[in-house]
Amino acid sequence: MEIKISEITKKFGKKQILNGVSLTIEPNRIYGLLGRNGAGKSTLLNIITDRIFANDGTVTIDGVSTHEHDELLGKIYLMSEVNLYQKRVRLQELFKASKIMYGGFDETYAKHLCEAFELNPKLRFGQLSTGYRTIFKLIIALCLPVDYVFLDEPILGLDANHRELFYKELLDTYSSHPRTFVISTHMIEEIANMIEHVFVLENGKILVDDDVDHMLSQAYVITGPGETVDQYTEGLNIIGTESLGNLKGNYVFGSLNDDREIPDTVQISRMDLQKLFIHLTSGGGTGK
Amino acid sequence: MEIKISEITKKFGKKQILNGVSLTIEPNRIYGLLGRNGAGKSTLLNIITDRIFANDGTVTIDGVSTHEHDELLGKIYLMSEVNLYQKRVRLQELFKASKIMYGGFDETYAKHLCEAFELNPKLRFGQLSTGYRTIFKLIIALCLPVDYVFLDEPILGLDANHRELFYKELLDTYSSHPRTFVISTHMIEEIANMIEHVFVLENGKILVDDDVDHMLSQAYVITGPGETVDQYTEGLNIIGTESLGNLKGNYVFGSLNDDREIPDTVQISRMDLQKLFIHLTSGGGTGK
Repeated sequence: MEIKISEITKKFGKKQILNGVSLTIEPNRIYGLLGRNGAGKSTLLNIITDRIFANDGTVTIDGVSTHEHDELLGKIYLMSEVNLYQKRVRLQELFKASKIMYGGFDETYAKHLCEAFELNPKLRFGQLSTGYRTIFKLIIALCLPVDYVFLDEPILGLDANHRELFYKELLDTYSSHPRTFVISTHMIEEIANMIEHVFVLENGKILVDDDVDHMLSQAYVITGPGETVDQYTEGLNIIGTESLGNLKGNYVFGSLNDDREIPDTVQISRMDLQKLFIHLTSGGGTGK
Repeated sequence: MEIKISEITKKFGKKQILNGVSLTIEPNRIYGLLGRNGAGKSTLLNIITDRIFANDGTVTIDGVSTHEHDELLGKIYLMSEVNLYQKRVRLQELFKASKIMYGGFDETYAKHLCEAFELNPKLRFGQLSTGYRTIFKLIIALCLPVDYVFLDEPILGLDANHRELFYKELLDTYSSHPRTFVISTHMIEEIANMIEHVFVLENGKILVDDDVDHMLSQAYVITGPGETVDQYTEGLNIIGTESLGNLKGNYVFGSLNDDREIPDTVQISRMDLQKLFIHLTSGGGTGK
């Protein structure tokens, strides 16, 4: 069972948000969906989960359109920044309502998560701080019997301890009960160890669709005296550069030239995922 | 010129938010103000900048109470999550208004920052996304002629590229024109290299008031086979523990026992600031 997104386009007014996006989401994997502010990540997630309509293109599960067969949407859950809950309702009632809507809900696990995060399920949704609203929505997302969980900025307002607890719980529930998670976040380094595959959206198009290991295996920082570094990296795919006095670092994505001898004063090291992302997408923001 | 906070207490209703907080903020330093959600960080910043009143205690600049001499508040700026601006007003007008209120504003630097962040100053405040509202408020904070800049969660909604640009600009403006920055954030690892001194608030009290280097010099992770690790760390100040199969890691804060021989199977390594914070404050959240 896989989700196939084909040639999705979306405009808001005159503004092209998504421009021919195609990708495949496979069962039982953890994906990262990365992109600058305004790149179209939330729009794409809303289209996949049929909350908004695309102008063109299709979303299918095993070849069947989710838009035409909305029982398929019961396999998918999107946790987003939008608060869908009535403020006066108690959390434990919202758990019950979720169970009714999705035909199941892991109450034992929800109880465990409430205890771990020290969230009292007798509180009303409106009483929660930003951080605890996020935690509540994460609990819903982790306890529903769906095959695909989409998490749009799942750590908004969470302090460092709660973020670490969430990452741990996600990996625990994933290994005891494999399903697919697609995580969209700006905190790239923190999720880098969890995700196997990454999609990078830029200006409404897919810029990267690759396994994390494969991506990182082609990402190098070449440092040393400016001239020597420039000489050594000539002709390579330089995606960014930094300098510090006479020293220079060129960020290279792609293969190095193995015939070229490495000068003694030059060092080659690896890039982490966040740095790689920054340099791949440094074309700039979207203005607003 | 230093800011002295003495024995500040604050209650909201029956809830004690701050409980006898004392600390000193010196000129031309970069501080981190850390704490779990609900620890009282924003309340403390609002009291220092006289936006709300304390129930008890004083805030003085060189011995003079800021509450009684509000011309001193012109030396201090707080950038917070609250949006104080009218949505229909253009950013360039808001820059002018800030200049009038604070008796100065670095227009050249504001222009540079708008270009670097690709923010069009002709836009109206209401047209900006969450991320760009944060960027606009950061520009104000960096361009005002104040001696103390307090930044409450300054990276809310910023993508990785914009966060990196902000850290770079903050260090640039700090070195060309030294003043004090107090940064309150949950993204501890990202600011760890910038801050010299850290305050950790927990349950309304100061838990740590220390230089970052000194703190980290006392923070160790001892890993190896569970029993050996426990034996070696017996009697030390263990602030956390993790396990992986038969292996165990004990997080120690304080001095190691130098008389004890280090077993061959045991490794001692350093902790980063975020891990140290997590283990120091793992008593739990505040419920909401």
